[in-house]
Amino acid sequence: MSNPVLVEVTRGPLTESVHRGAFAVADAKGALRLHAGDVERPIFPRSALKPVQAVPLIESGAADAFGVTDEEIALAAASHSGEPMHTARVLAWQARIGCSVADLACGPHRPVHEPTAAEMIARHERPTPLHNNCSGKHTGFMTLARHLGAPVAGYQLIDHPAQRLVEKTLKEMAGLTGELPYGVDGCTVPNFALPLEALARAMAQFADTTALTPNRRAAADRVVRAMTANPELVAGTGRACTQLMRQSGRIVVKTGAEGVYVAILPELGLGAALKIDDGASRASEAAIAGLLIALGALPDNGAAAQLARAPVPNTRGVAIGERRAVFDVFR
Amino acid sequence: MSNPVLVEVTRGPLTESVHRGAFAVADAKGALRLHAGDVERPIFPRSALKPVQAVPLIESGAADAFGVTDEEIALAAASHSGEPMHTARVLAWQARIGCSVADLACGPHRPVHEPTAAEMIARHERPTPLHNNCSGKHTGFMTLARHLGAPVAGYQLIDHPAQRLVEKTLKEMAGLTGELPYGVDGCTVPNFALPLEALARAMAQFADTTALTPNRRAAADRVVRAMTANPELVAGTGRACTQLMRQSGRIVVKTGAEGVYVAILPELGLGAALKIDDGASRASEAAIAGLLIALGALPDNGAAAQLARAPVPNTRGVAIGERRAVFDVFR
Repeated sequence: MSNPVLVEVTRGPLTESVHRGAFAVADAKGALRLHAGDVERPIFPRSALKPVQAVPLIESGAADAFGVTDEEIALAAASHSGEPMHTARVLAWQARIGCSVADLACGPHRPVHEPTAAEMIARHERPTPLHNNCSGKHTGFMTLARHLGAPVAGYQLIDHPAQRLVEKTLKEMAGLTGELPYGVDGCTVPNFALPLEALARAMAQFADTTALTPNRRAAADRVVRAMTANPELVAGTGRACTQLMRQSGRIVVKTGAEGVYVAILPELGLGAALKIDDGASRASEAAIAGLLIALGALPDNGAAAQLARAPVPNTRGVAIGERRAVFDVFR
Repeated sequence: MSNPVLVEVTRGPLTESVHRGAFAVADAKGALRLHAGDVERPIFPRSALKPVQAVPLIESGAADAFGVTDEEIALAAASHSGEPMHTARVLAWQARIGCSVADLACGPHRPVHEPTAAEMIARHERPTPLHNNCSGKHTGFMTLARHLGAPVAGYQLIDHPAQRLVEKTLKEMAGLTGELPYGVDGCTVPNFALPLEALARAMAQFADTTALTPNRRAAADRVVRAMTANPELVAGTGRACTQLMRQSGRIVVKTGAEGVYVAILPELGLGAALKIDDGASRASEAAIAGLLIALGALPDNGAAAQLARAPVPNTRGVAIGERRAVFDVFR
């Protein structure tokens, strides 16, 4: 059985391309409230794991011990665009914990934000690991390592206490036991695989924290508060996550590479997770917008509507087709 | 029924993403020699149509009348990378027919060749329609318009004699009758939709031209000769088409947007066409390489093998997974 088509791309009278995928919507009691496709096969959440990866930073007491701000928590859970607003804050945080860019285990990539990348090219400046979209997450791990009295070097390795805490937290929030399969993420950190339904359940724990232990609850509440208050830091100028979070002001929307999205919907008490089979972000953006509209978490206008139904322009800027969420699947 | 998985992308112990698609391999008599997936549904060949779009330029006598060189024929059939070797030749050709960049109907996009794009950014130079990967094709249409005594302005419109000749040529080579559905390509020119099996048959006409009329035969032979002799002009430095064509020296490999590839295999007397359902070029490149290896058109080493099985690196350059053609499907 193949997954259903979640997004289609038209050109003139025909559908030119299609994107299949699966999604799950769960509540904090673990009930699957809506789903389509195979939600039992393990998938890599990639950067959609970041809200979970930020929990041990707070729950351990590290954030309080090092005076980590809500902006920094948002950056710990971010796939940032490498704009000055991101890199300056990550640098300042690193200085405060006695670390530097040289301690980052992630490699360099050019800023996701095109104007920033172009300015760097014009200045003949090369990207550093600071511009890596994960540099905030890594700085969070370094902060956690410092607080645990563990070495900063090697914080990205599977046996480092920081990563052990991430796996433990993920399993508890997702309701899983046993060792999780893992792969190495683009930023060198372990990324744990789990079924979409379990990822949705983990997100539902953030949406309704009433059943969590007091420490976990405070940590999860703070992650949601920090992310919703700082949508520009969680992604960046013009990015889908930022636009969708700003449109509501009360939800968390987080992308992951290879076509993943999660959402935390506190007012509905729901968590959502989706993955496009082929990994295309143009499709995951349309699909999460379509799903959030269908759930009533976002209105069918503004950024959500524009992502759910986007014109496909030619090089003269004329719309010659449409990329659109297949709404029938999300209802 | 969904199409089979042609390409899979792994991370650590799991398959992270998959790309479904269909392909057809035909001979010049029209027999389907190999296929998988739905090869009857109309697809847009996009730039994989360019070998056909170059035929009327030669068959009409326009190329001879304007002294069009084999390098220029290759550019007429190219999705070029906007490197100086491409843009300088297109400019010179335009000057010879009394046209200029201002006559190009296509819009601007930055050069596909990253170093060229970076140099332009550093010089604060904006891309023009000359850098559009289709500017050679458009210059071919302008040459054809001049020769036919038709206005150059409007050469991109469906009723222009140049586009009527393209549709007529495509239908004859693909063995189709009636009007073909069409959409507007990224470069503003009509792109005609046809089944993958028909597109493969059209490519087979290039591979074995013995049954064509003398004029059509001379034109088709010249397109193949011009493309195989100039693989750098057909795409550009480091591009998949260029690498695969260079590896053989005797085949044509041409990509099209949204996951399309065609191949012309004169020594086997075969034409091939494939489309990835989701439109991903990372997948179409792996799939065409896998198909060409399976057909024996390319050896299982060098560029073909590297495209068919490519390591997926993290930002530190360490391979953490693999993108690979699913060879079982191609055999």
